[in-house]
Amino acid sequence: MTDTTAPPTLNLFSHLPPAEAEEAATALLAGDGVRLERIVSYGHVSPEGFWYDQDEAEWVMVVSGGARLRIEGEAEDRALGPGDSVYLPAHCRHRVAWTDPDRPTVWLALFVAADLAPDPRA
Amino acid sequence: MTDTTAPPTLNLFSHLPPAEAEEAATALLAGDGVRLERIVSYGHVSPEGFWYDQDEAEWVMVVSGGARLRIEGEAEDRALGPGDSVYLPAHCRHRVAWTDPDRPTVWLALFVAADLAPDPRA
Repeated sequence: MTDTTAPPTLNLFSHLPPAEAEEAATALLAGDGVRLERIVSYGHVSPEGFWYDQDEAEWVMVVSGGARLRIEGEAEDRALGPGDSVYLPAHCRHRVAWTDPDRPTVWLALFVAADLAPDPRA
Repeated sequence: MTDTTAPPTLNLFSHLPPAEAEEAATALLAGDGVRLERIVSYGHVSPEGFWYDQDEAEWVMVVSGGARLRIEGEAEDRALGPGDSVYLPAHCRHRVAWTDPDRPTVWLALFVAADLAPDPRA
């Protein structure tokens, strides 16, 4: 018999890591080829010259705070505020150019394996 | 050659349906066994006596607004505000008991097929 019991409600803004911590990713849901994470940044940026280049597609949204995302080949950073989301296909190279140093930036990031054929706004 | 180009940034609060519309679900990302939706409610509730009973697991979060969710077998509704999320295993029967009639309630809902073995906080 499968357990259909719902675990307690969780708030996304609870248990934020301290500001001096490293950028922190917490899995909210994970399955075969799919993973939902909360990421908390306090002024963290990707190292100079570093690009994420992922086998998985990623949908990422800023829930609170502010960030700038750079996508390889684009002329400018994308400024992201609450509710702004970007779909990054697998191997779309990108880096975090800036996050607000004065408050936590809380992201939701959904990673989906390319073989699950993720498609935005399908 | 796979297209690695990122589509434009989308804001979750853009293009909200009018308040008099039916509850509106918009797919943000869909793949084989995984679907991310924005749902917008304006006072909508589940019909009396109706229970959602889904083959998929669902992770759902209120991003803005307010709602009350009833889970079968629980003594009280769960009151949900911004950032509150609930994991609903497949076949966890639930209904929306209330949403704020005075403003839009914007939800993010991630549906994952049971055979992808979704697991909260894995």
